[in-house]
Amino acid sequence: MGKVVAEISVSLDGFVAGPKPTLEEPLGVGGEQLHEWVVRLKSFKDSHGLPGGGETGPDDELLAEALDATGAVVMGRKMFSGGVGPWEDDPRANGWWGDEPPFHKAVFVLTHHDREPLTLQETTFTFVTDGLDGAIDDARAAAEDQDVLVAGGADTIDQALQAGLLDELRLHLVPVLLGGGARLFAGVGPKLPRLELTEVRESPLVTHLRYRVVK
Amino acid sequence: MGKVVAEISVSLDGFVAGPKPTLEEPLGVGGEQLHEWVVRLKSFKDSHGLPGGGETGPDDELLAEALDATGAVVMGRKMFSGGVGPWEDDPRANGWWGDEPPFHKAVFVLTHHDREPLTLQETTFTFVTDGLDGAIDDARAAAEDQDVLVAGGADTIDQALQAGLLDELRLHLVPVLLGGGARLFAGVGPKLPRLELTEVRESPLVTHLRYRVVK
Repeated sequence: MGKVVAEISVSLDGFVAGPKPTLEEPLGVGGEQLHEWVVRLKSFKDSHGLPGGGETGPDDELLAEALDATGAVVMGRKMFSGGVGPWEDDPRANGWWGDEPPFHKAVFVLTHHDREPLTLQETTFTFVTDGLDGAIDDARAAAEDQDVLVAGGADTIDQALQAGLLDELRLHLVPVLLGGGARLFAGVGPKLPRLELTEVRESPLVTHLRYRVVK
Repeated sequence: MGKVVAEISVSLDGFVAGPKPTLEEPLGVGGEQLHEWVVRLKSFKDSHGLPGGGETGPDDELLAEALDATGAVVMGRKMFSGGVGPWEDDPRANGWWGDEPPFHKAVFVLTHHDREPLTLQETTFTFVTDGLDGAIDDARAAAEDQDVLVAGGADTIDQALQAGLLDELRLHLVPVLLGGGARLFAGVGPKLPRLELTEVRESPLVTHLRYRVVK
């Protein structure tokens, strides 16, 4: 059976998005800097159907490994649509990614609002109303032997960590300060999970840290 | 001329001390975990006059290098004495370290309260009332060609970073969550310093990250 893994880019001051997110700037002020390391990579461009080849190297190898290992994805409603719902007429109602989302697999979206599954090319979004446990169970079934990726946002990762649902936490630590925004780990506690550092990979743009969640 | 370097151990959720510090537990609940990687090292034990030899290896090499390179130390009043002052009859009034402080060099303590210098064995504490700029100037003079270490706490490091007084920031990122306490970077902003990752060194207990402050 695969692992349940959370993976996210985080600023040195602990934010996964900057302050004041808007429709035009969903990652908040400065938040795009968190993803500069990844958007230039070949595996990112390939999965997003973007032209231009993209960079190879250690960061790309790491991304390619993670994409290959992932069988299904879980995300919060805010990550899917900026919190839009119940699914009114809004450009975000079908997610941020347009007609060809980059996932190419089953994605389970946490929500309180029932909705039929949405299939866009190779990506199927299933809307799960029975909580994170249920979404991860569904994703495990869809992933078969592969990993389940809890992709965010911060509150969903916090909830998974706190509930003991994660096997592994992977942070991409970006050498930038955002000064505010969505803070990772803000929703964890008072009982604190134990972590064990299992891997560090480095590049000039980002430090990749992998932690095992001690059960 | 040496560099002005800030160096501190920080939890994965961004704290340099845990919640609820007391006289008995000055690093707050769980805060001692931040220093488990260092207190076992030979160079730490040697500088603190502790028996038992201590561990050698990559962490110890890093610590030994930093100790050798440091010519003078700057710290906030809270780091020196838990905030005690003006210097009443309190066990902390001469610092946390007893009669033989581990610094063995000039230490400049930021305070609002005048006080004569305090010499304990090879360590001289000088109390500086004209602010962080003044303390760093004094420390530069004392350090001659060596580095000035801004040792903490979080608010002093934040202030130095914000004021453009640091050349380098060194974080020892410890794989532990504290859930609260003294947060590094809380005092930085709204103008945000730019950082550049220059070095990563790893061990099972801690990830050593070094950033150049871009001027």
